[in-house]
Order: sequence, then structure tokens, then C-alpha cells
Amino acid sequence: MASVEKYFDLVDQNQQKFIETLREVVAIPSVSSDASKRKEVVRMGEWLQARWEALGATCKRVDPGEQNLDGVILDLPPVILGQYGNDPSKKTVLVYGHYDVQPALLEDGWETDPFTLVEKEDGRLVGRGSTDDKGPVLGWLLCAETHKEAGIELPVNLKFCFEGMEESGSEGLDDIIVAEADRWFKGTDVVCISDNYWLGKNKPCLTHGLRGVSYFHLLVEGPGADLHSGVFGGTVHEPMVDLVHLLAKLVDNKGRIQVPGIYDQVMAVTDEEEETYEGLEFSHNALAADLKHDVIIHAEERDTLKHRWRYPTLSIHGVEGAFYASGDKTVIPARVRGKFSLRTVPNMEPARVAELVTKYLNDEFDKLGSKNRMRVIETHGGRWWYSSPKHPNFVAGARATEKVYGVKPDLTREGGSIPVTLTFEENLKVNVLLLPMGAADDGAHSINEKLDKRNYIQGIKLLGAYLHEVAQTDLTTV
Amino acid sequence: MASVEKYFDLVDQNQQKFIETLREVVAIPSVSSDASKRKEVVRMGEWLQARWEALGATCKRVDPGEQNLDGVILDLPPVILGQYGNDPSKKTVLVYGHYDVQPALLEDGWETDPFTLVEKEDGRLVGRGSTDDKGPVLGWLLCAETHKEAGIELPVNLKFCFEGMEESGSEGLDDIIVAEADRWFKGTDVVCISDNYWLGKNKPCLTHGLRGVSYFHLLVEGPGADLHSGVFGGTVHEPMVDLVHLLAKLVDNKGRIQVPGIYDQVMAVTDEEEETYEGLEFSHNALAADLKHDVIIHAEERDTLKHRWRYPTLSIHGVEGAFYASGDKTVIPARVRGKFSLRTVPNMEPARVAELVTKYLNDEFDKLGSKNRMRVIETHGGRWWYSSPKHPNFVAGARATEKVYGVKPDLTREGGSIPVTLTFEENLKVNVLLLPMGAADDGAHSINEKLDKRNYIQGIKLLGAYLHEVAQTDLTTV
Repeated sequence: MASVEKYFDLVDQNQQKFIETLREVVAIPSVSSDASKRKEVVRMGEWLQARWEALGATCKRVDPGEQNLDGVILDLPPVILGQYGNDPSKKTVLVYGHYDVQPALLEDGWETDPFTLVEKEDGRLVGRGSTDDKGPVLGWLLCAETHKEAGIELPVNLKFCFEGMEESGSEGLDDIIVAEADRWFKGTDVVCISDNYWLGKNKPCLTHGLRGVSYFHLLVEGPGADLHSGVFGGTVHEPMVDLVHLLAKLVDNKGRIQVPGIYDQVMAVTDEEEETYEGLEFSHNALAADLKHDVIIHAEERDTLKHRWRYPTLSIHGVEGAFYASGDKTVIPARVRGKFSLRTVPNMEPARVAELVTKYLNDEFDKLGSKNRMRVIETHGGRWWYSSPKHPNFVAGARATEKVYGVKPDLTREGGSIPVTLTFEENLKVNVLLLPMGAADDGAHSINEKLDKRNYIQGIKLLGAYLHEVAQTDLTTV
Repeated sequence: MASVEKYFDLVDQNQQKFIETLREVVAIPSVSSDASKRKEVVRMGEWLQARWEALGATCKRVDPGEQNLDGVILDLPPVILGQYGNDPSKKTVLVYGHYDVQPALLEDGWETDPFTLVEKEDGRLVGRGSTDDKGPVLGWLLCAETHKEAGIELPVNLKFCFEGMEESGSEGLDDIIVAEADRWFKGTDVVCISDNYWLGKNKPCLTHGLRGVSYFHLLVEGPGADLHSGVFGGTVHEPMVDLVHLLAKLVDNKGRIQVPGIYDQVMAVTDEEEETYEGLEFSHNALAADLKHDVIIHAEERDTLKHRWRYPTLSIHGVEGAFYASGDKTVIPARVRGKFSLRTVPNMEPARVAELVTKYLNDEFDKLGSKNRMRVIETHGGRWWYSSPKHPNFVAGARATEKVYGVKPDLTREGGSIPVTLTFEENLKVNVLLLPMGAADDGAHSINEKLDKRNYIQGIKLLGAYLHEVAQTDLTTV
């Protein structure tokens, strides 16, 4: 693979130029949740399209329609679809990324202006979007540009899908993926997404699983209006009292979900899976330091990871309708809505989860013998995603990682959701690899977001190496 | 008591004039919680002072100082102290009332402009402050004026204390009562307050008890910052989970407080007390209609009243720090504060209540085995008030009621608090009678607040009759 070595060399030579390119895009404040910045989001999308087209890619700008953002009607930023190379003898890799960013204000506590990239002595490239997700999105572009500059043919056809609404719920994206599955995305062999993070700070990883999430409202309604606790306390069934009794039945304080049957659909831990927890870059000491207080439930690191990755969990988020301000108020709220969610894992079905949760809460409410009315409402039921790390797409990712970093990547899953992963898998019927560029401490949604120079430069190599590995891998055998 | 009959006759003759006077004071929008209306509050106080002085009373205007209302520094409205008659051979009755009102806007749903008194065909005098508390405050004034007009000497010396901040926490009042206890209020034999309501719509009552209130915050602190439930759900001790478990331990869904020892200090129900529940104007049908939904816990009316008046109760008001808005958010709140209060009754001591509640919650938290930190904070501990209905002051009130309405008044207690009652009793060391003018359906803090013409006119008679009865009662025998 002399061509890859040549590519690596040129990446090393171009380091400073790549940092300047990152500086250029960080300077575009493409905050998708801020109506006043919508023009900047669009400008960022247009920047990407222009640069890919200059390289020779064919692009299609899809405008997903309008959005009502706090009463302002705005055009949604475009989804930039692209095709770079169209050789029927090559495999086709679809890559996804997003060019919008989280909000950031200097007064939030940033060391320096968030939209001015600063290269720190310790190697941090600090700026909003550096790691989430402008660095990786540039990674694909710079990989293609560098191949051209080096006179190396890209070993695969590249399709891309870059959106500008990821930080705001990816509004409009799913419909486009469904509509383009047999059109623009036709012929895709595998998908690669670089939009998550290493488990730790030093060891690269491949990510092969995400949890789903089922969100519930537990509504308890009592009297027609809020009551004064002096007059009515102790004489009426208080919705808040019923609610806390029911919420307390959902999960014990060690995180064990109390809903009967909820663990029945959970995939058992195999010896093979058990092995994947060996040698992961993860420690409770580091976690406790991040949390500021050691409030970790489990004694063993691997149990914490299992409960993050592969067991269902239940969290209680809050209560709507009750007194929530500071100070004292003696109200009896008439109508309260507890909010909780379950993170779901293979092979739980959201419909079954909703059925079990609803039945259990109805049974428990009946036991209370309350005259209030109770209703369980499932507001969202998003499925988990799981891919075998033995799939050739992952094998390619692992080989590329070893080539760049000299170590076998950790095999990780994530506790949260990246819904687009499942959308691609289900609609394109191909394997999806999550191949992160950044590290655990990048602070994607926090102040002083950074991407380490090492991760940026090696990451650009990694994405290129991955394309070369895919080209040489038989994707049909699992 | 020919003089009382003469007084009654003149009250009847003056009905329309009295309604005009009520119209005049309702037209002064003395909303104490609205900074822009502060001048009107002061104007209302000055109106009262001028009218009493015109009658011959000696007044002392006490300005309690300043207030910070939403960032605006305002002078507190004056407390008007007065003395009408100073005959050492007569008893001295101190009366209290307030001349400020709740906010009111036509667009809240009022049938007519809230500050224009409207006399309805069904006898309602509709206007903000009509029943709370301008009607009763005028009652004392019109009683004195009518006596003078009728050429009848008032049979007692009258002292009065009218404040303009009752609807905003009576800011500044307690200090004045403490300071004037041995000065302006010196020589007071009994106190009478007309600022509450009948139990029902048709039968007058005397009120001889109020519950106290102890307010608690249950603070649970976990990690240093809010966490994402996808990443941390099921792996850390969630403050909200600990909180709902603890809140659920406080009270069962039938209103029984679960704190050990909490009922030990509660006064037992005597046969004599049991009799006072006979024939009260109170029905579950009417209560359920008011509540819109029948969420009443108890089967018997008297049990509802006992739990409103003479048993402690515990209500859960809400949670500060958790997600409270509409929609879905998958946060794990780092720091939550549950708010609950106990209504306390004879002979519970607030300090003992706080001790029992704190110990119980600490014990229950220990059982949870959580790594979070928990703290119970008592933010307020206001004592209950209870007076024997056999006290001569109450006997005088009962006789006056029977004279005016032809029925024995119900003996009631209230579930809420009127803190000034206890302040007077404790600082002046004399008996306090609560002698309401309005009915249960007056809607004191609601839209379309009203005082029935019957209650207004008969109420003016009642306050006068009460003064005559006090004059003839030996207050030294209980």
C-alpha cells in the first residue's frame, strides 16, 4: 500500500494548512438553534458544496423546507448530497456529517472567542465545532483533496450527505434519506459516520452500538384547578402524591428497573462480548473526577460500561405542572406530568416496552386506590442500533486504525442515540460504521470545545486509510 | 338593648348609602403586589384615616419603611392605627383589617370592570376587595358612623389597626405590633378580626382555630453538573430517583403522614368537640362540585373537616432543579429540591415537627444507600392558633350573631393560616375572635369577587352587635 504511505506523508506536510482550513470553517458561526445565525448555517453548507465542486464532485443541494423557530419562520439549511467518483468497478462508501454547531458565547466561560480557532501549546485546537463535527466533515474533504494533490486515485467512490440541523433534531433529514434511498444513495455499499468520540483520551475506537430511547409522560389529574394546601391538604387525593408514589415504583436507587418483564428481551452477555471489555480505556477514577462527586453505582468498570451500553436504564427527568421555582409556595398542583425515559438495548422492542410500562403503572395506580385520573403517554420510541463488530466494514475500520495509531481499536457502544445511524441502515440496507475522530474530553457541547491536533491530523489519515481498507475488503462475507 | 335595635334600623335605612361607600373604595385599585399601583394603596389608607379622623378618632400613621418589589424600591403603605373613644370605664376592643387587594384584570375573566362595584339582581355586590377585605373594614367605620348618626354612644373604646400589605405578606406589620403592644395597643381587652369566610353560603360562623405551617426543602445533590441520561442513566445515583423515593415515604395516598411520632402531639378529639361537627353547613356534594372532580379522600363530611382543621396534613408542592417545561428532555438533573409542607395543629411544636421530619428522612436516606448528598431544610415554621370557643369574647360573638341572623353560628376552624391572629394573641396576651362577614363562595382571590348585599348589611349590624355584647360580657371568666 505505497499509495497510503504517500497520502500519509502529504497529510503530515499539510498539517498547518489543514489547521488553517479548520480555522476558516470554525469562523462561520453555523449555530442551527439560533434564528439570527441561520444565514451563517447556510453559508457553511454552501462553503462545503463549493469546495467539493471545485474538487470535481457532483453535488445536489436539497432544501428540506421551513421551520418554525420560536415563532420565526425560517428556511431549513440545505442538506448537501454529493458524489465523488463514479467508477462501477469500485465500491461506494457513503459518509455522513453535519456542518452546524452548538451555540457558544464567550461569556459562557470560553477561554477565547469560540469562533476563532486557537492552537494551544498542549496541542488543543480550541473552537466551537472543532470536534463536533467540522473537524471530521473537513476530514473527508481534505482526504479527497490530498489524494488528488498526491496524484493518488481515491480507491472507492465517495457519496456524502452533510446536514446543517443535527444539533437541532436533524429536522427534515429522515424524509430526504427515505426519498433518496433508491436514487442518490443507490449503489452505496457501506456507510461511515465520524460524529462520536473515543471512550478515553488516548485510545481510538470503533463504535458498533447505540441505545434506543422510549420517552414517557405519566399524567396524573385531580381537581379542576390548583388548590390551597391549607384548605385542601389531607382531604383530597393530591396528584403530586400519586405521582411520586408511582415514580418511586419505576426504578430502585441502584438503577434496577422495577417494571416486570422489562429485562426479558435483553440480549444475554456472551463470553465473546465479555472479552471486549478487557483493556478498554476507561476508569472509575477518571469518571468520578469528571462527575466532580463519585456517585457511581457499580463497583466494576465493566459493569458501568454494560449499564451504559447494553442494559436498559430508566431516568426520571422532572415534573411538569408542579411548583418549580425557588422559594416556597403552598400550592396543591391539580395536574402533574412526570417525565421519564428508558434507554433500550437489543433485543427490546419499543412497542413491547411501552406495553409493559403502561400495564405496570396502571396496575400500581389501581393499587393506590386514588380518585385521580392517571394516564401513561409514550411520546417517543426510538429503536437501538447494534452492528456486529465482525462485519467487514468494521474489520476495515479496525485495520485502518491499527495502521494509523499502531493499536487495535477499542470496540465500544454508546449509551445515547445517533438516530441517523439507524435511518441509514434501515433504508439503505447496508452496514454502518461509527468511526470517531475526537477524544472523550473534547467537550463537544461544552465551553472550550477542542479537537487535539493529533486527532485531527491522524484522523484525516484514518478516514483515508479506511477508504483504502474498504476497497480491499470483501464486504459480502460476514 | 333598645340602642342596638335603633342602630339596626338606621343600618337598614342607610343600605344604599353604604353600598355607595363600598363603591367609592372599590374604585381605588389598592393592589399591593403591583408597584405601579402603590400610590393607590397609599391613597386608600389615607382615605380611611381621613374618614375616621372626621368622625373624631385619633389616628397614628406608621410607615413601615421600604420594600424591594421586583427591583423597584418602594415605600411600604402605611399602617393606620386608631383610637375611637377613650373612656376608662369601657372595655377596649382592637379590630384589624386590610385595605389592600389582590390584582384583578378584566381580561382575567371578570364579568365587569373589577374596580367598578356592580350590584347584581341576585344581591351580589361584585368588585375587587368587596369581601376581602374592604367590606369588613368599612363595616367597622360605618358601624361607628351610624352610631354617631343615631345618637348612640359606642359601648366600647375602639382601637384599630388597618394595613395595606396583607395580600403581599403583611411586610412590616409584625414589627409594628411588637413595638406598639405596650404603647398604642395598651389596654386592649379583646381583638376581633373580620377577614375570613363562612363555611358555607348561608350560615354564619365564628372561627376559633387556624393551622400552622412548617415548610421543608428536601435537597438531593449528586454529580457536579446535569448529565445526559443516554451516557449516565443507570450508572450513577440520580438525585431525582432518590428524591421521589424519599417523597413517596412522607405520606401515603390516603393522606396519612408516615413520619413516626408526628401524630403523638395531636390533641385528641373530645366528645365536646365531636358535637361541634353536628349541623355544620358543609356537604361533600357541594365540595365535589367546587373541585370539578370528586377527589375527596374521606367518606364522611366531618372527617374531611377534621383533616382540614384539626389533624396535621402533608402536601407535596413541587420540585426545583428538575426539568419542568413541556416537551421531552433527557436530562439527569444534578441537584433537585423537593418542596413539601405540613399543616400543624394543637399541640404540635414546630421545632419538634422539624426534628421528626429530619430524622425520618435521614433514616430513610441512609436505607437507600445512595452516594448522593441529602439535606432537609426547614424554611418556615409558623405555629397554629387555637382558641376555646367558650371564651367570653366568642360568647359575645355568638350572641351577636344570633341577634342578627337568628341562628347559632357554626364553630369553625380553618386549614390555612392568618399569621396576624397569633401575633396579636402572643404580643397583646388577649383573646382574638375571627368573625367573618362574607360567605364561602365570595371568591376572595378569584375573578368576580363579590360580597352579598345581605352579608354586607347584616355584617355591619353584626360588628355593631358584637361591640354591644362585648360591653356587657364579663371577659375575665372563661
